[in-house]
Amino acid sequence: MRGVTVKRFFIGIDLGGTSMKIGLVSDQGKVIRETEKPTLKEEGADGVIDRMVSHARNLAKEACVPWQEIQGVGVGLPGFLDIPGGVVKYMTNLGWTDIPIRDRLQSAWQVPVKIDNDANVAALGEVWSGAGNGEKNAICITLGTGVGGGIIAEGELLHGAKGFAGEIGHIQVEPEGALCNCGQTGCLETVSSATGMVRLVHHAVSVGEKTCLAPYVRDGSLSTRHIFAEAKRGDAVARKTVDQAVHALAQVMATLSVVLNPSLFIIGGGVSQAGESLLNPLRKKYQCLAQKNARQDVRIVLAQLGNRAGFIGAAGLLAHIQK
Amino acid sequence: MRGVTVKRFFIGIDLGGTSMKIGLVSDQGKVIRETEKPTLKEEGADGVIDRMVSHARNLAKEACVPWQEIQGVGVGLPGFLDIPGGVVKYMTNLGWTDIPIRDRLQSAWQVPVKIDNDANVAALGEVWSGAGNGEKNAICITLGTGVGGGIIAEGELLHGAKGFAGEIGHIQVEPEGALCNCGQTGCLETVSSATGMVRLVHHAVSVGEKTCLAPYVRDGSLSTRHIFAEAKRGDAVARKTVDQAVHALAQVMATLSVVLNPSLFIIGGGVSQAGESLLNPLRKKYQCLAQKNARQDVRIVLAQLGNRAGFIGAAGLLAHIQK
Repeated sequence: MRGVTVKRFFIGIDLGGTSMKIGLVSDQGKVIRETEKPTLKEEGADGVIDRMVSHARNLAKEACVPWQEIQGVGVGLPGFLDIPGGVVKYMTNLGWTDIPIRDRLQSAWQVPVKIDNDANVAALGEVWSGAGNGEKNAICITLGTGVGGGIIAEGELLHGAKGFAGEIGHIQVEPEGALCNCGQTGCLETVSSATGMVRLVHHAVSVGEKTCLAPYVRDGSLSTRHIFAEAKRGDAVARKTVDQAVHALAQVMATLSVVLNPSLFIIGGGVSQAGESLLNPLRKKYQCLAQKNARQDVRIVLAQLGNRAGFIGAAGLLAHIQK
Repeated sequence: MRGVTVKRFFIGIDLGGTSMKIGLVSDQGKVIRETEKPTLKEEGADGVIDRMVSHARNLAKEACVPWQEIQGVGVGLPGFLDIPGGVVKYMTNLGWTDIPIRDRLQSAWQVPVKIDNDANVAALGEVWSGAGNGEKNAICITLGTGVGGGIIAEGELLHGAKGFAGEIGHIQVEPEGALCNCGQTGCLETVSSATGMVRLVHHAVSVGEKTCLAPYVRDGSLSTRHIFAEAKRGDAVARKTVDQAVHALAQVMATLSVVLNPSLFIIGGGVSQAGESLLNPLRKKYQCLAQKNARQDVRIVLAQLGNRAGFIGAAGLLAHIQK
């Protein structure tokens, strides 16, 4: 059938506590059409799943793609999952426990369905269709409220024995450091996340250090945007905070380099909106700290897909390197 | 053809600077027959490769296995390799540079050949047929002159972008620590290798600390066997040295657990001959340092194959999880 182009389409869904983002994605990782709908978690798992089913079907219809042309649906979920089994073990922010979501979606849609956690699908999205450009060994680091990670090694997402691989926010960087939500002290996340950086400035103010950031601390509005802006203007506390966040992150990236030898680090999340103000010092510090073989030709770049990374990567669970 | 058992055989070669170990291995990872021959590196790459070719053929003949029944040969090599290309880039202790060893062996033997580095094949050997029992997420740590590593993730050996994955001896554990061969300071290898532990005792003696190990320091015969023995008898310097080595190793294992979430650590190399004197404190310290999700059901065991791990794992390059 020369001349006839057979199109393959996938649907990706990024399910969050407040909204679900849904995208119709080509086998090249391009977004054909997308939508965002409220999660309405108060309807419980049954209601949410029913609406995932109909929203996805409607999206395909709106794009004039017959459902038979959908090759599969991937779903990114913020919780603890049994990925091979396709089951949500628990998902705190939706209040779900032991929901066999994959089988339920599969029987409703009659297409293959895969699930994975939200950090992993975002990493896969970036590597497949964003900053990653198909690299086979890449690590995504998301600097937001916490520090999340997703690892692609030899072209595959790493999950580990129980699905906890890539939890790089919990690498300990300061044994005597602040208490982390996870129960440990001095995790990367206590220093290099938005929360961690804000905490460092609050601490400096509380011990009497002088800083232009003090008013934001007092009215509780301090964000990393303020910190990077004041660091640029030379404020000592802001500079020290950025240095400490960059140092801890570079140290973890140096460790990851000897363990995994990636060719690419992709930095995303709210803190990464600082752009080159973050990347420049990070690249320099990484060059100082990383072992010389392992740092060869390693690129450090910003994520490109923003909050579309999740649904694109979810679609990629099915489209990516099909075996 | 009911009742007819088709046997599949593989050959594995562990090429070292002084000797090459060669084994005929079943598809279950059992050694049928093995031999060890001098490398005679002074003959150069051509001579060494010719003798690998004939020694392997002879081994099959001695085991009465016709060469046609050999499914493939794997070779473990101590050097910097282009693994997908099958080329030895450089191998210091044999003086080789840019040797396309895979293609040369393949054309001599007329069977598929794969190469990988010695630490990786040893890890694969242990996981396939030794302590690993087929685990899909396992990390082998070899405590010898240096600290070597091999990582199996999702059932596959990790190589990384340039083949440097698994170099866990070069994770920095003490930023202000001793200079490592790699140029960094305070690598795991400077503390938890045999060389590192001996160095720590030498240092203690040089600053005047009292220890029963002093005579061995003076005559240059100190080994980790002495250190573990005196630690058991309560010698303070010996104890401190073991504690420091164990702490650094456990800290690295905690980091690896959040990155890779393995279910198994296999500890090998000369230092591991201390057995439970090493494993007991290591397991305790790991439980203290590792993040609670990531340490769930993680086993820490001794390597079982000794110096046969290399050739068994080399055979496993072809036999293991054939896709």
